Amino acid sequence: MASSTVSFIIIISIITTVLLPSLSSQLSDLFPSNNPPPFLGKHSHPIKQPNHHQQYRYETRYFSQPLDHFSFLDLPRFRQRYLINTEHWVGPSRSGPIFLYCGNEGDIEWFAVNTGFVWDIAPRFGAMILFPEHRYYGDSMPFGSKEEAYRNATTLSYLTAEQALADFAVLITDLKKNLSAEGCPVVLFGGSYGGMLAAWMRLKYPHIAVGALASSAPILQFEDIVPPETFYNIVSNSFKRESSSCFDTIKNSWNALRSEGQKEDGLKQLSKTFHLCRELTSVQGLSDWLDSAYSYLAMVNYPYPSNFLMPLPGHPIREVCKKIDGSPAGSSILERIFNGVSIYYNYTGEIDCFQLDDDPHGMDGWNWQACTEMVMPMSSDQNTSMFPAYDWDYSAFREECQRDFQVTPRPRWITTEFGGHDIEHVLKSFGSNIIFSNGLLDPWSGGSVLKNISETIIALITKEGAHHIDLRASSTEDPDWLVEQRATEIKLIQGWIYNYSKKMKATFEI
Amino acid sequence: MASSTVSFIIIISIITTVLLPSLSSQLSDLFPSNNPPPFLGKHSHPIKQPNHHQQYRYETRYFSQPLDHFSFLDLPRFRQRYLINTEHWVGPSRSGPIFLYCGNEGDIEWFAVNTGFVWDIAPRFGAMILFPEHRYYGDSMPFGSKEEAYRNATTLSYLTAEQALADFAVLITDLKKNLSAEGCPVVLFGGSYGGMLAAWMRLKYPHIAVGALASSAPILQFEDIVPPETFYNIVSNSFKRESSSCFDTIKNSWNALRSEGQKEDGLKQLSKTFHLCRELTSVQGLSDWLDSAYSYLAMVNYPYPSNFLMPLPGHPIREVCKKIDGSPAGSSILERIFNGVSIYYNYTGEIDCFQLDDDPHGMDGWNWQACTEMVMPMSSDQNTSMFPAYDWDYSAFREECQRDFQVTPRPRWITTEFGGHDIEHVLKSFGSNIIFSNGLLDPWSGGSVLKNISETIIALITKEGAHHIDLRASSTEDPDWLVEQRATEIKLIQGWIYNYSKKMKATFEI
Repeated sequence: MASSTVSFIIIISIITTVLLPSLSSQLSDLFPSNNPPPFLGKHSHPIKQPNHHQQYRYETRYFSQPLDHFSFLDLPRFRQRYLINTEHWVGPSRSGPIFLYCGNEGDIEWFAVNTGFVWDIAPRFGAMILFPEHRYYGDSMPFGSKEEAYRNATTLSYLTAEQALADFAVLITDLKKNLSAEGCPVVLFGGSYGGMLAAWMRLKYPHIAVGALASSAPILQFEDIVPPETFYNIVSNSFKRESSSCFDTIKNSWNALRSEGQKEDGLKQLSKTFHLCRELTSVQGLSDWLDSAYSYLAMVNYPYPSNFLMPLPGHPIREVCKKIDGSPAGSSILERIFNGVSIYYNYTGEIDCFQLDDDPHGMDGWNWQACTEMVMPMSSDQNTSMFPAYDWDYSAFREECQRDFQVTPRPRWITTEFGGHDIEHVLKSFGSNIIFSNGLLDPWSGGSVLKNISETIIALITKEGAHHIDLRASSTEDPDWLVEQRATEIKLIQGWIYNYSKKMKATFEI
Repeated sequence: MASSTVSFIIIISIITTVLLPSLSSQLSDLFPSNNPPPFLGKHSHPIKQPNHHQQYRYETRYFSQPLDHFSFLDLPRFRQRYLINTEHWVGPSRSGPIFLYCGNEGDIEWFAVNTGFVWDIAPRFGAMILFPEHRYYGDSMPFGSKEEAYRNATTLSYLTAEQALADFAVLITDLKKNLSAEGCPVVLFGGSYGGMLAAWMRLKYPHIAVGALASSAPILQFEDIVPPETFYNIVSNSFKRESSSCFDTIKNSWNALRSEGQKEDGLKQLSKTFHLCRELTSVQGLSDWLDSAYSYLAMVNYPYPSNFLMPLPGHPIREVCKKIDGSPAGSSILERIFNGVSIYYNYTGEIDCFQLDDDPHGMDGWNWQACTEMVMPMSSDQNTSMFPAYDWDYSAFREECQRDFQVTPRPRWITTEFGGHDIEHVLKSFGSNIIFSNGLLDPWSGGSVLKNISETIIALITKEGAHHIDLRASSTEDPDWLVEQRATEIKLIQGWIYNYSKKMKATFEI
């Protein structure tokens, strides 16, 4: 982070406060960000609720994985956790499918609990359910513990998407062999980064899985494939479509924040306005906290009440804007902002004061991934974004990563390894059986595949959908479009399995 | 190598003599082998002939590669050599194709000289020619020198196929960017292990290359996909079809060799019979030398005189058998065998005595690859093979590798990473634009794709072809079937490029 940065999102506040405790004193009053927003951030680990295990039953198992699939260094293996449910599985004799959720950047139990779609549909498919955890997250730590795994760039160096995909491939191959289930088709599921993994896995390991539902998977959010302003424009538009005055208030709030911060006693006053538990030492942390709320609100802008990242009402951005617009006459910009983001941070009304960085351990894995492979250029357009204007600055980003992690990013590696440029041409006559599902309210949709590529590589778009809403459990509050979307997905998955069985049967008959 | 092994092929004699100098004393009189035959063995580096550079003109360049594409360890980069010719390239403005030969287990100059097909057809395509070298071979040594690169299992640990494919991907991406040639289609070529790389590269990197000609690429020679007897059965049949008495003589020769070796002065007598420069210390080395000749003869059993591995007449197995069968009346079995293999080892008649291991540095890279990923189970069937009977013994093989390289093989990794089982189903509706060309005389053809998989994943079979004969330069001696085979390949490649251009054009017109 250059000395002149304030980020939009919590990732930076963690880097600042955890990895760079001395940095905040260097921050000036400018507001650019070099870092892409995290996907699920600090939320992607389970809030230990006793009813989680009651909701979905699974067995927890561990699999011994090579730390490095792509070299033969003599390295210690690690225990990869996976959750398994075979309750509805019809078994090898009936070629029962295996539904595999590609674990992403967090505790796998959290993803299992938040991916109700897989649990909902497994019984009708007679499917086994598998939730393998992503290495370096949750309980799947190389070197025996998170402390050791996250010790330095050397211990972290095997935290890559390719290694994670190979983990899935090795695990499922071994599991199928042990169960004599080689003939059982595997269907991949994934949301967000997990959706990227699902799509890439189908592309790289077509012999392992017959198809992939990649929900909200921004596999094009790299290099120069989509404009870097895309993400923040979508967030901004989600607010603008609810209320242009709400959008304007937020857009104007950054200057107000800066001015206030520069006043004598300004930080004290800001801390009071925003009900912070501890007094601010700079505007930075507060700015990050607000940025983060807006981005996450856009992601979870679901049409019904949910508790994915936070307990929230339906259409939460609408509610935030109602608060911002509807604050009592005479309220200052910052008071309005506080009222608004309280919807996000304190919908239950239980919180007396806010900790800006109360979960320093939630995101460092993704920070590492962002500083190595997952380099997603992000800008904020002066005119169309409600965030402070900022042009993506790769050099500054690289320097941050070198300083924070002693690692140099490879910004072109993901597109070299997985493609992305001209994807419609490349995959038009290559590959099959991928659903890219996206809700257009989701800021990550801008970096996703939004057009059908071929007859079997499909884009499913919902205008009112947000971040992988289709993967959530069905509920009586589901709008019709969501019911229809899921029905389409089920039909496509049935098609993959049917075609697979047909091909297998044809062989047996020969 | 168990104490009771004699190999069929030179790979073992190298392991024995170079890596295990103390082993030969342990060898008994049995004749099994645990090791797959090498592809090109010690031959795959250029015999420095002054006319090589006259034959094909290229520039030699170097590209700085990460040593490990799949981790972020702070490792020294290495210089990958590549040969380039742009003489006929019509350039980016006309979307001139780029022909990329996937360098395999040897010096890239040797492959360039022996892949005349690419040079022959490049002008009519207006194509650039690229021959990138495989890491750890030729002049592309990590750690600055072969000595350092091959020092131990740690330094060798990055010698894998996946790393080599990533090298190609990174190199071509960078090169295209520098030449503003992003719109130029890349066509992959490769023979033998290089053909495997070409096929796998098209499957794993469809965004990098539009198609692949994978000649004599035994991508199915892994795990239990094809019967382990396949290779030696094909070698044996190549002799049997020329003469059953020739086959019988060879089949009987192993016992003769063993008996002779057990006699007092037997090794001395054998050394004399086979015109060896140094006296044998065991039968092992001689047996390997013979095994090697038969396997290579089957691979290069071309219908015209060639100098690929050795200077040889056309139909060399026919000539070998003529010598074996036509030795003067009263010749012993071993004298017949010597007369026969002299065709292989001394066709020019220039050699006075034979060195059994005159090139200890030629093959250790492939030995490492065979002991890590490229685990190709090989057996020799008592009835159908002319080689000593042997059942594949993975445990013994693993122990050899642990002892020789301090590395444990991953015998299921290649099929996990690249597939192979049920390939017809997996690729029927996945992937496109691969030609698997095979000559049925080639012992590697048994582990290759011999049936069309889809409309664009094609098997081209020639009954009288041997190891990637189609990749050799055209000559006036080419039989009609070879001329036709190459014409088909050219037509298919034209189709790939045409379809690519059509898709690109369609975009521009939108």
